[in-house]
Amino acid sequence: MIIVMRPQASKDEINAVVDRLAEIGCEAHVSAGQTRTVIGAVGDHLVIQTLPWEAMAGVERAVPVLKSFRFVSRDFQAEDTVIDVDGTSIGGGSFTVVAGPCAVESSDQLMRTAEAVKKAGARILRGDAFKPRTSPYAFQGLGEEGLQLLAEAREEFELPFVAEVLDSRDVALVSSYADILRIGTRNMSNYTLLAEVGRQPKPVMLKRGFTATLEEWLNAAEYVYKEGNHQIFLVERGIRTFETAARNTLDITAVPLIKSMSHLPIMVDPSHSGGRRELVAPLARAAIAVGADGIMVDVHPAPDTAKVDGAQALLPTEFAELMDTIRSMASVLGYHL
Amino acid sequence: MIIVMRPQASKDEINAVVDRLAEIGCEAHVSAGQTRTVIGAVGDHLVIQTLPWEAMAGVERAVPVLKSFRFVSRDFQAEDTVIDVDGTSIGGGSFTVVAGPCAVESSDQLMRTAEAVKKAGARILRGDAFKPRTSPYAFQGLGEEGLQLLAEAREEFELPFVAEVLDSRDVALVSSYADILRIGTRNMSNYTLLAEVGRQPKPVMLKRGFTATLEEWLNAAEYVYKEGNHQIFLVERGIRTFETAARNTLDITAVPLIKSMSHLPIMVDPSHSGGRRELVAPLARAAIAVGADGIMVDVHPAPDTAKVDGAQALLPTEFAELMDTIRSMASVLGYHL
Amino acid sequence: MIIVMRPQASKDEINAVVDRLAEIGCEAHVSAGQTRTVIGAVGDHLVIQTLPWEAMAGVERAVPVLKSFRFVSRDFQAEDTVIDVDGTSIGGGSFTVVAGPCAVESSDQLMRTAEAVKKAGARILRGDAFKPRTSPYAFQGLGEEGLQLLAEAREEFELPFVAEVLDSRDVALVSSYADILRIGTRNMSNYTLLAEVGRQPKPVMLKRGFTATLEEWLNAAEYVYKEGNHQIFLVERGIRTFETAARNTLDITAVPLIKSMSHLPIMVDPSHSGGRRELVAPLARAAIAVGADGIMVDVHPAPDTAKVDGAQALLPTEFAELMDTIRSMASVLGYHL
Amino acid sequence: MIIVMRPQASKDEINAVVDRLAEIGCEAHVSAGQTRTVIGAVGDHLVIQTLPWEAMAGVERAVPVLKSFRFVSRDFQAEDTVIDVDGTSIGGGSFTVVAGPCAVESSDQLMRTAEAVKKAGARILRGDAFKPRTSPYAFQGLGEEGLQLLAEAREEFELPFVAEVLDSRDVALVSSYADILRIGTRNMSNYTLLAEVGRQPKPVMLKRGFTATLEEWLNAAEYVYKEGNHQIFLVERGIRTFETAARNTLDITAVPLIKSMSHLPIMVDPSHSGGRRELVAPLARAAIAVGADGIMVDVHPAPDTAKVDGAQALLPTEFAELMDTIRSMASVLGYHL
Repeated sequence: MIIVMRPQASKDEINAVVDRLAEIGCEAHVSAGQTRTVIGAVGDHLVIQTLPWEAMAGVERAVPVLKSFRFVSRDFQAEDTVIDVDGTSIGGGSFTVVAGPCAVESSDQLMRTAEAVKKAGARILRGDAFKPRTSPYAFQGLGEEGLQLLAEAREEFELPFVAEVLDSRDVALVSSYADILRIGTRNMSNYTLLAEVGRQPKPVMLKRGFTATLEEWLNAAEYVYKEGNHQIFLVERGIRTFETAARNTLDITAVPLIKSMSHLPIMVDPSHSGGRRELVAPLARAAIAVGADGIMVDVHPAPDTAKVDGAQALLPTEFAELMDTIRSMASVLGYHL
Repeated sequence: MIIVMRPQASKDEINAVVDRLAEIGCEAHVSAGQTRTVIGAVGDHLVIQTLPWEAMAGVERAVPVLKSFRFVSRDFQAEDTVIDVDGTSIGGGSFTVVAGPCAVESSDQLMRTAEAVKKAGARILRGDAFKPRTSPYAFQGLGEEGLQLLAEAREEFELPFVAEVLDSRDVALVSSYADILRIGTRNMSNYTLLAEVGRQPKPVMLKRGFTATLEEWLNAAEYVYKEGNHQIFLVERGIRTFETAARNTLDITAVPLIKSMSHLPIMVDPSHSGGRRELVAPLARAAIAVGADGIMVDVHPAPDTAKVDGAQALLPTEFAELMDTIRSMASVLGYHL
Repeated sequence: MIIVMRPQASKDEINAVVDRLAEIGCEAHVSAGQTRTVIGAVGDHLVIQTLPWEAMAGVERAVPVLKSFRFVSRDFQAEDTVIDVDGTSIGGGSFTVVAGPCAVESSDQLMRTAEAVKKAGARILRGDAFKPRTSPYAFQGLGEEGLQLLAEAREEFELPFVAEVLDSRDVALVSSYADILRIGTRNMSNYTLLAEVGRQPKPVMLKRGFTATLEEWLNAAEYVYKEGNHQIFLVERGIRTFETAARNTLDITAVPLIKSMSHLPIMVDPSHSGGRRELVAPLARAAIAVGADGIMVDVHPAPDTAKVDGAQALLPTEFAELMDTIRSMASVLGYHL
Repeated sequence: MIIVMRPQASKDEINAVVDRLAEIGCEAHVSAGQTRTVIGAVGDHLVIQTLPWEAMAGVERAVPVLKSFRFVSRDFQAEDTVIDVDGTSIGGGSFTVVAGPCAVESSDQLMRTAEAVKKAGARILRGDAFKPRTSPYAFQGLGEEGLQLLAEAREEFELPFVAEVLDSRDVALVSSYADILRIGTRNMSNYTLLAEVGRQPKPVMLKRGFTATLEEWLNAAEYVYKEGNHQIFLVERGIRTFETAARNTLDITAVPLIKSMSHLPIMVDPSHSGGRRELVAPLARAAIAVGADGIMVDVHPAPDTAKVDGAQALLPTEFAELMDTIRSMASVLGYHL
């Protein structure tokens, strides 16, 4: 932490900061510049960051030099985390494709989709039973019945599945069915929910809050990790910006940045990023090119009847074409699928 | 809803949209322009908005004309909602000041603050027992003990209090102690929590998600309202933008905009907006000037030892000075305090 | 400047940074922390900031501690700048109202507006002869004829006027007519234009780029100041954010922040911020309450025929009512008008 | 244009809108909904958009259905524009690599870089003689001497070059030397400069304003096109968002979106987007994968001595490696280099 004093800070105010650092067992490096004194605080940065430096007299600003997470950082673990889901790897040189309907609507819809995505080469099925919707008047999901249908699809097509959990009270239920629990974009800062999924044994897919910084995102992962569950992977799904031509702005740069900051795998969701069917293939190609560990794609047998996000769902035939492209790019880029 | 067809849309594609509208009991007004056909959908807009128009063949874009909420809109109720909390009014021409520490840390800290804010003229006490923190290593609140201390302060100083609830499982507990339940900025889109506070009887203070649009915010209020609890008021607390000179960008324009869109009262939180003590008074003055129904202010007897957000807390003496200014402005602007 | 080395930075890489600082006459304070070495650079920060620290081997990040402008900072000049325009003060405890049509359209439109705003209490007239428009098909202004009409209005109603200059080639022309030259939001980073207005004698009104940070804005002012023209004042006019319910998001917090960072006066433009007539009065009230040195307001005798921005223009009667409110607030807040 | 009336709009107010449309030769389609009347305006949308609908009594909102540009749209020209620069194609299935130093600093620096990028496969040289800098204390470029050096490099290595023009007064000068004129991100809304480059014969590279919407960007291109110069191509270079982990947020989605909206070629600048050397290769791969027509890359023989943007410049060896990757991806993706 760098503590910048105001130009008019007194000797006593500077000493008070130095003393406070000494109290918590940290060193202070004081540099008197032309207009301001700057104090470098050296010690356990997680301890230093908890004190209200900017509330002390004479302090102008406190600038953190290190990040506020520990276990999920590259500093803590240099090697990539690799997650095994029933024989399918996430991270470590694989490019893993997750596909399926946004929401489970019916047995027929789910089975047709699962069959198609399996055949085209997807390794994990997606499909939600609980949906967070901006409007209370929109379809909210089938609940446990949806989870049962997903479990049937898993049996039928040998595809592990990921499903979203919205409420701390449902964690045990979703965990009893699903192979991977998803924390959706709207819950990335729901810290009690994060802690709860950190205490159950299934891997956790943590989507980025659509307005979260990378540091906040990794702090959310730290909440899960700290409770004992280290099988966490991230999914970039677009952020909110001034540009509204697409549903969100896919932050493709987040992929190499996260890889430098953290050892956790990171996928991209080209469907929720763009929000339009014709954007899915270009964004999926960008994802594999930039170095992501996989993609998650919405597929629906009849998007114009979909209860959720139909405009962004690929038809099974379109998905199969995309998989062909992904395969040829994977070979050039050195991935195994 | 306005449905804009692609330039090359066929007669059949246009008819398919018209037929779909007829199926749900709505009328279609078809206008053939120079390059595109545009279809105006007339009927219950909440029904129209649930269908995936943009997934239909030949559709370029679907532009909603009306908002996706109903009960919290001015269209539904023309008169302002006024909430009574133990004799204190929120809305309807009052300017209501909520004040207290960000987090309850100890009996002494809380009692000293409560006494000071009561004396200076605050009508409602704030103080949290459960804190959502970006870092898992930061102070997370005293839990139920904090609520007990708040209840004692209420007795001692005759101040109703508002406290945050973070988890659906804690709603009954917080509701049994607090006079007002707060939904914090990070939970504005936690729809299961919103529904839960909608089913208990205490008024709800709904803070704006720091990246929520006004329409999303009012949809969140709709989730509460729809469950039967109509005693909702809003608090603008700054949004996330590219500008990082202050903690957040106070969206002062949100106040008159919300007043035109909704009948719910709206307050401003100048402490969390600016994040710095010296910004609180100017932003509080702007809040009363722009037409807000009140403010919520962090006060702490010793900010430089605060466990949460010390940099933005006013000292009791500073708060008393602010209240003097607010009183003189209220008389000019026609408010009663 | 704080230079943060990578965890694996070598002794040689650290020494190279220290040597580079010595070469430019600066001191290096080296702190070896748990994971990283951090180097504090002490010396002339404007010199330090010009070197490419992040391109040096072993450097992770370079964090500036001080701002990149000098003359317009409070550090350089503690007292407020006060500008005199023909007997009217800007800054120093005055609240100065600038009003008039967005664009000059005709003699009749301008004279009717000038008469009305003078009578209501405005001290400076606005009106543009050159308009920057997003679309090339929109009205681009009357050019020199517009300046002549403004000069006639000045004579008639004893109102100095401000007019925008868009192109370096027009600086001499606009300067020969206008009392104040305006740099519009789209030209805040047009550095050759800034330098040009810095070389002529009339005061400069510098609007904030709608996506400029406060530091970039003050750097733009520094471009003008450095050329010799120190009569500069700033106008906040709303920034671009994710929220589109109003035309822009008025950054009201910018006012106290700029006052702490700089000695230049700062006004608010409530018309371009909100973009709607009904938002002008609430935002103008917020501006005077927050501590601005004035406002600039669009007024038009017939907004529904206006060639530019009619939706945000006040009618003369609405402007007169606003001035009454401003006068009563000014007396409570200690301003002189 | 869709004109939404207020709920309480009178018959007369509705008629006034209809009459106004008739006056400008347009048709009105009136739909009376449950709460509001909506008027669809059919006719020349460029004419309709110039009138101040939202200033008319009873109007709540005017929602444009069509874009405000014409000639640069896909509606106007279905086939891709292909630009020929001295035998090198931009657009139409080529992937064109532009490379060189950010700023021309000396003959030696430029010649070494030009030789290296030519050898590695770049087809166009970049290098600026005029630099727009946030701080007035930063290096501003060599001016005409820089252009002369670029012309020498062109002779020596048979590489056409692109150079930025900052000021209307320099257009003729830059046009007399350069093969392509660049409008930089800070000048995208400098409409007088856009018109000026539209009147000279060299192709124009139009970078996106870092806070411009796609529609504003295409309007800027329309300013150039309308003056007679149709040889325009676009460069996406990252936008400003809340995320500050990289210099800008590369808006990769802009590439397929622009391709659907316009016939102009679009490149990506991975250097200015990320601002860090290690991000250039991943972002360049994403650019070719998503469907861009080329990239522009900063290369410098000694980045740690660069006068501008050293942190993002590739070494010649790094650039050669990137070109190898680009070549293998181009063959899979069906591009010719």
